[in-house]
Amino acid sequence: MTSNKKAVILLSGGLDSATVLAIALSEGYECHTMSFDYGQRHRAELDAAENLAKQMGAATHRVMDVDMRKIGGSALTDDSLAVPISGVVEGEIPITYVPARNTVFLSYALALAEVVEADDIFIGVNAVDYSGYPDCRPEFIKAFEVMANLATKVGVEGHTLRVKTPLIDLTKAQIIQTGDALGVDYSLTVSCYQADLLGRACGVCDSCRLRKQGFAQAGIADPTVYLPGVVE
Amino acid sequence: MTSNKKAVILLSGGLDSATVLAIALSEGYECHTMSFDYGQRHRAELDAAENLAKQMGAATHRVMDVDMRKIGGSALTDDSLAVPISGVVEGEIPITYVPARNTVFLSYALALAEVVEADDIFIGVNAVDYSGYPDCRPEFIKAFEVMANLATKVGVEGHTLRVKTPLIDLTKAQIIQTGDALGVDYSLTVSCYQADLLGRACGVCDSCRLRKQGFAQAGIADPTVYLPGVVE
Repeated sequence: MTSNKKAVILLSGGLDSATVLAIALSEGYECHTMSFDYGQRHRAELDAAENLAKQMGAATHRVMDVDMRKIGGSALTDDSLAVPISGVVEGEIPITYVPARNTVFLSYALALAEVVEADDIFIGVNAVDYSGYPDCRPEFIKAFEVMANLATKVGVEGHTLRVKTPLIDLTKAQIIQTGDALGVDYSLTVSCYQADLLGRACGVCDSCRLRKQGFAQAGIADPTVYLPGVVE
Repeated sequence: MTSNKKAVILLSGGLDSATVLAIALSEGYECHTMSFDYGQRHRAELDAAENLAKQMGAATHRVMDVDMRKIGGSALTDDSLAVPISGVVEGEIPITYVPARNTVFLSYALALAEVVEADDIFIGVNAVDYSGYPDCRPEFIKAFEVMANLATKVGVEGHTLRVKTPLIDLTKAQIIQTGDALGVDYSLTVSCYQADLLGRACGVCDSCRLRKQGFAQAGIADPTVYLPGVVE
């Protein structure tokens, strides 16, 4: 790595962010990867992220503990540290919903960017698959970037930090084609919402089906390891 | 509490944020307070925050674990989860520096605001004491607010969430006068950088001196409990 460019890469262990890491590396960045353990994630995904960081040549990798469970609607009753003291107890929030997730993740990325003096942050948001998520929209990313440059010494000192979203307009098939061309070993990635500890996929959840369809449409062999009994 | 207004309040356990909580309560908000345990904080400060939330009538209180130590410059060598995998080891970052701190804190506040359907977020930033901190500037707060309204369902659904900074232009003496008029019991707050487990203050650190001077200039008796031997 002869370049002086540095980037912080949000790396989940899934297909999209592995592709983002490959793109950043191909552009000559020294890459500092970051994963988040926020309770609803499966260990297999975090293990995959660590493995990808190592195999693909990230400079450093971090796993941040983000206790979103204390914030989720269920926390008011389930979490001993989120104790109602007075007032009305709120209604239920779906347990799977992660409020302001990308804002929190990008904030940690910003903190790390400041420490390692990164030029850019990469995030694998995708407006095609996640059109319903406000924090996957280009206008959100742009607003975060503006805020980020006012939040830190980096901004004060004249450097403009960018939040790069190379996948924002790509279909799953296009993402896979891009990563494949860059040599990404997708067998190391885990997309399944209910992968087992070995990272084997169920083949039937939304995420699995989107991924399967992506490989089919890309015309690339699906290297995913499915659980025994899954009809591929 | 007959109002339907809700707010998320960043509550550190110090003098400033206790005043902010009093202001929000006086404006009729149902207040959801949030503290952060990010390693360099003293237990006494977090205990003070919990106590203040309870005494002053917050609806809920949460302590979020934010492992900034994994991000700080020293993490590259000290933290087993921030393992250099390859590349150059970075130079030293001052151990007391907390990069992007307010961005991370406000992001958690935003997540909670979305869950409890809060109208506003309150933060006790102050441009007088902290003129050197980029994330205490009004333009940063404004940019965060713009981003926040694009990040969440709240923004999508038409409600505008505000980030309120009632102390931004006040001196320490003015903050104390404001809180005193609202009945804040400042003996419950902890400002000292090196308070003991009982919250007793050293009387000599920057924070203690600023606080002492504030009470003196406000013409209000200083209720701070100092460690034995401190000359008041």
